[in-house]
Amino acid sequence: MSLPSCVILNYTPKQELFNRIHKFQKLLIKNCINGALIVQKADLFYFSGTCQNAHLFIPDEGEPLLMVKKSFERAQAESSINNIIPVQSLEEIPKNIFSQFKRLDKIGIEMDVLPANIYIKYKSAFQPSELVDVSMLIREIRSIKSTYELDKLKKAANLNFAMFSKVSSILKEGIREIDLAAQLEAVYRVGGHQGAIRMRAFNQEVYYGHILSGWNSAYPSFFGGPTGGTGVSPAYPQSAGFKTINKNEPIKVDYVGVCDGYMVDQARIFCIGNLPEKLIKAHEIAIKIKNHIIKETRPGMNGKDLYNMAYNIAVDSGNKDYFMGYTEDKINFIAHGIGVELDELPLITQSTDVTLKPGMVFAVEPSFIFPNEGAVGVEDTMVLTATGFEQITYFDDPITYS
Amino acid sequence: MSLPSCVILNYTPKQELFNRIHKFQKLLIKNCINGALIVQKADLFYFSGTCQNAHLFIPDEGEPLLMVKKSFERAQAESSINNIIPVQSLEEIPKNIFSQFKRLDKIGIEMDVLPANIYIKYKSAFQPSELVDVSMLIREIRSIKSTYELDKLKKAANLNFAMFSKVSSILKEGIREIDLAAQLEAVYRVGGHQGAIRMRAFNQEVYYGHILSGWNSAYPSFFGGPTGGTGVSPAYPQSAGFKTINKNEPIKVDYVGVCDGYMVDQARIFCIGNLPEKLIKAHEIAIKIKNHIIKETRPGMNGKDLYNMAYNIAVDSGNKDYFMGYTEDKINFIAHGIGVELDELPLITQSTDVTLKPGMVFAVEPSFIFPNEGAVGVEDTMVLTATGFEQITYFDDPITYS
Repeated sequence: MSLPSCVILNYTPKQELFNRIHKFQKLLIKNCINGALIVQKADLFYFSGTCQNAHLFIPDEGEPLLMVKKSFERAQAESSINNIIPVQSLEEIPKNIFSQFKRLDKIGIEMDVLPANIYIKYKSAFQPSELVDVSMLIREIRSIKSTYELDKLKKAANLNFAMFSKVSSILKEGIREIDLAAQLEAVYRVGGHQGAIRMRAFNQEVYYGHILSGWNSAYPSFFGGPTGGTGVSPAYPQSAGFKTINKNEPIKVDYVGVCDGYMVDQARIFCIGNLPEKLIKAHEIAIKIKNHIIKETRPGMNGKDLYNMAYNIAVDSGNKDYFMGYTEDKINFIAHGIGVELDELPLITQSTDVTLKPGMVFAVEPSFIFPNEGAVGVEDTMVLTATGFEQITYFDDPITYS
Repeated sequence: MSLPSCVILNYTPKQELFNRIHKFQKLLIKNCINGALIVQKADLFYFSGTCQNAHLFIPDEGEPLLMVKKSFERAQAESSINNIIPVQSLEEIPKNIFSQFKRLDKIGIEMDVLPANIYIKYKSAFQPSELVDVSMLIREIRSIKSTYELDKLKKAANLNFAMFSKVSSILKEGIREIDLAAQLEAVYRVGGHQGAIRMRAFNQEVYYGHILSGWNSAYPSFFGGPTGGTGVSPAYPQSAGFKTINKNEPIKVDYVGVCDGYMVDQARIFCIGNLPEKLIKAHEIAIKIKNHIIKETRPGMNGKDLYNMAYNIAVDSGNKDYFMGYTEDKINFIAHGIGVELDELPLITQSTDVTLKPGMVFAVEPSFIFPNEGAVGVEDTMVLTATGFEQITYFDDPITYS
């Protein structure tokens, strides 16, 4: 069945898709790879515009082929790839590729996300072609955002502003973290938030982000970010739990807004009453770090320079031991790429050897975490332009007191 | 930092964990596998009680070893495994295993979920041991639920009852699907729902389930279930969208409740006004199928008998073409296992050759889907006991009219 004409969904424009595909084809040629098979949802959406059950084959030159298992009709509506065909089984994928494309010595696949069993099946089905990993090539292309993508990120930032604007009116002493989360998530959903946050790394996951208060904002977890939190059970051990929110403790809202698949990551500190002087000072240092990063970062710099800029301010402030966590649960980065996945490239650590380029989008998140007392800090999503960082997310920076 | 004493989280009891481990060890011995490395979150939670960043090695006999990267302190609190050690890097995993366990010719890993790149690293790091897939052994054990697990499922069913009880009071003509979703999700969250729904299959995902009305409940998607829906964008193309809910059309709420990681899957039809006679009749057939399945299913039967029971009633009713979807977007099952993942074993299709056993838990979901008109049907989570099916989820069956 086709969609009623009243329904307006935002499809990725054809020119946008083909720009991405051409960039990828150049990289394939440079790396002597004859084509790549794309299947993981975020990559598939990026290159084809659809998230249906489908395989996209991108040859090193010419038109790609989209093979759809379910829903074929819907993939046709969503994707502006010219060559779309239905398939019933996995066996048809290599058959179709070999019949439409020649000279396939090396085929790229997404080895960082493809399960081992599927990889082994492909290896046998694509013989005599050699399968090579193109996940880093894909992630490299995706790290530079287009004007179209920046527009989506700005819309996601507007949704985040709407959400943050509600926090103060919901907060009251004795409310539980999970109750605050429930109401803010409802604001997101009414604003068209898809709910799910996509992450690429194996075994990483997050539900919107972290809403945490006091000691719970300093309670560590498996999660790759600076905070953890109890969560509601050991089965999902992060973010908001049943802790009641008290006066005079930091309340960290670190949530991810989404528009048409594009994500922004943003955090602010709220408080009912007043914070201890130590936390206020650390929070000011975090803001100073953010502002310094915005002022000093330029394309051409190395990622580790960005990290060191932040780290040096943390050291000078005397709060080094609490910067991005404490003891063995400290994390090693100050910023991460973000787009259709929360954990995009580049990750900015002390050893990141990557040249910063215009179009890269980062969530920059300086924070200090004090055991038993809580987390302070700020996070914003920003784009590197030819002249420096430009903030995409927005909301008043200082601690918001209720 | 340790948790304040006021915080009560439900940890999996030691006896429960060790019963599971012993069952698995028996299967390892039976299959001549000397031990297994467990890392995927759902499996790790099932066998160790923790979802921290950790690797669990289960030898074919004796005590397992839990190696934790982050958070070590928290894994110690959450897991009652006796032997827990901290590790800093992936390289330490084989080193620790080889030093603590001998005679490791064959090591089992989760090849259905482990990414290809990690698999290749393991293959080299565990030489000369042979790596074999134990994912089906794990899933087989997990398909039989203990009394402890059934208790968690019953609590999740209570949460679902609370959610379904709210639907009628929220529904009004002109409300959008996404608005209804926002309010019901808030009910869940306040009740302690973790939010995220775990699925095992590669590229499968769902956000709580599907809230759909009229034509949108018949709009197909990639998703492995009978319904799809537009979603809010092609980036997340399923479930509630911006469609307004009208009078005299079916409103399907098919949502997944969770308690301590354990999920129940349940669906009911609501309506403002009246439904067309055709849909009412099809809905009655779906209820008839469910009741027949409950009445007739016994341990020892084959999965395909269960499927055929349902299919034959659908055929007799004259609605075969709309049973579990239509045309090429039909799905091939009538029920699926459920527990700490939404897509557990067994899946009940026409070709499922599996003997039904006491303790198996299924979401049974007979439905009929008519293009442009919508979906009707019912879904409940139930456990097979020695004498037959017992329903876990509950809520009045007939269409609920507002």
